[in-house]
Amino acid sequence: MKIGRCVWEGRVLLGVVDEAQERVSFVQDSFSHSANPLMDWIISGGPGAVSTAGSAKLENVQFLSPFSALRRNVFAVGKNYRAHASEFDKSGFNATAGTSSIPDYPQIFTKATTALSGPYDAISFDPGLTQSVDYEGEIAVVIGKVCRRVSPAAAMDSVFGYVLLNDVTARDLQKRHSQWFLGKSLDSFCPLGPWIATCDEVQADNCMLSTWVNGEQRQHACLKDLIFDIPTLVSTLSQAFTLQPGDLIATGTPVGVGIGFTPPRFLQSGDDVRISATGLGEMRNRVVTVGVSE
Amino acid sequence: MKIGRCVWEGRVLLGVVDEAQERVSFVQDSFSHSANPLMDWIISGGPGAVSTAGSAKLENVQFLSPFSALRRNVFAVGKNYRAHASEFDKSGFNATAGTSSIPDYPQIFTKATTALSGPYDAISFDPGLTQSVDYEGEIAVVIGKVCRRVSPAAAMDSVFGYVLLNDVTARDLQKRHSQWFLGKSLDSFCPLGPWIATCDEVQADNCMLSTWVNGEQRQHACLKDLIFDIPTLVSTLSQAFTLQPGDLIATGTPVGVGIGFTPPRFLQSGDDVRISATGLGEMRNRVVTVGVSE
Repeated sequence: MKIGRCVWEGRVLLGVVDEAQERVSFVQDSFSHSANPLMDWIISGGPGAVSTAGSAKLENVQFLSPFSALRRNVFAVGKNYRAHASEFDKSGFNATAGTSSIPDYPQIFTKATTALSGPYDAISFDPGLTQSVDYEGEIAVVIGKVCRRVSPAAAMDSVFGYVLLNDVTARDLQKRHSQWFLGKSLDSFCPLGPWIATCDEVQADNCMLSTWVNGEQRQHACLKDLIFDIPTLVSTLSQAFTLQPGDLIATGTPVGVGIGFTPPRFLQSGDDVRISATGLGEMRNRVVTVGVSE
Repeated sequence: MKIGRCVWEGRVLLGVVDEAQERVSFVQDSFSHSANPLMDWIISGGPGAVSTAGSAKLENVQFLSPFSALRRNVFAVGKNYRAHASEFDKSGFNATAGTSSIPDYPQIFTKATTALSGPYDAISFDPGLTQSVDYEGEIAVVIGKVCRRVSPAAAMDSVFGYVLLNDVTARDLQKRHSQWFLGKSLDSFCPLGPWIATCDEVQADNCMLSTWVNGEQRQHACLKDLIFDIPTLVSTLSQAFTLQPGDLIATGTPVGVGIGFTPPRFLQSGDDVRISATGLGEMRNRVVTVGVSE
């Protein structure tokens, strides 16, 4: 099932996308009236059968962030594709680069809940705060069940599905503060969507993830090429603490981010960032600069 | 005002501690019936006047974590006292040590919401997961008002008060995962309490923070000795994203943690960790080891 939160005829509804990704059917149940319906549905033990009433063409439906709010920070994994780990360490923007660019264990940080934005919202920043904003196209895991200390073999039982996420990063702040959290957490720096695909819809072996900036392809990789695969990531996190329904784990970005170029190609006002993956649809976020008075 | 969440005659109530820290008066209002009353009270705009009915001797009242749950991860600052920055880098446990142990900018990471525990709860860990658990006595800032892009000069308007926090850390996991989040986020690794003191109750110039393990003093420092002071920390975070009522900022730990000793003195089952600060009372947490199958 591909399920998202969308606007149709002025109402916010849960919508189920059909296999051909041509039509959206609208879910009829009490969660449609919740402030955070997809979160509540997952917490309540979805996916079960859903009853739908009415449908519309996909192109006429506006998808929002699947979650209107997060219950805690996004868990995110750094340097989880080999060629990206190398490009990041060579860039000079990794204040924590070690002797080997390939990590021996997952490097896990978080993004603030308030960075969350929708699949078609603007990525905005103040050039007075950062001038090195970069994209990171990623596939995030959505946890479906409470889990603690699961083995990799059992980990997928706790996964609800997958969703596109742009781990937008202010490279100067990421470097300056050494720990990565702050530069990853600016408001609007976590576009998410357009929908969540349940596990049966995505096979890592043939799930291709791509990012374009102004129509130029910058990233293209297969989910199977993660250094630490999804069962390993879920298991690793669950060893330390209890994972909860609605938790997001951003699994890492492949080679091709802006700092991989010489000179770096940072995002500029007006840029059009497009991310897609097999079965997960497409996000498209425009970059805008804002000035904020003090 | 010193206000906390406490148990009295089998009920969970908000309690106000008197100036002599001898008696607790119980707050009578609707927040006393909330699942997270102090959080709700702060979000609603407290502190205003509170009406109390009944009181008891402080020693007869059991204080809980001031918050029953956090709305998002604890923001925390690394290496924010000079002598501790040096001891940490020399310890070999900082995978991100740079050329200078004194950071040029605050090093900010987070702790998982689920690490939260009370001021007298056990600190528990599985020796199969970590064998290098360390204490970090800290003073945390509690945000009282939504704030975004405040200057250091205006930052204190957004601060509700201060509370003791133990930034318990699994040093092996902190090092192994390079980013500090995971080793800081085990369940029970964030004791908080016993109460929150409003800003008027704490003066950085004479607020002394101390930690004892089994009665031996390990840490003793003044809050004024932070490298990055509290207005600077609040301002720095608020430049990147919107701070919200109930957010916690753990301001850093002084010299004297277990890895500062040669050989390191890690916490062991049965250890008694006591942290106190001027006006903030005392936390006392016993260390227990647990085995978890799988």
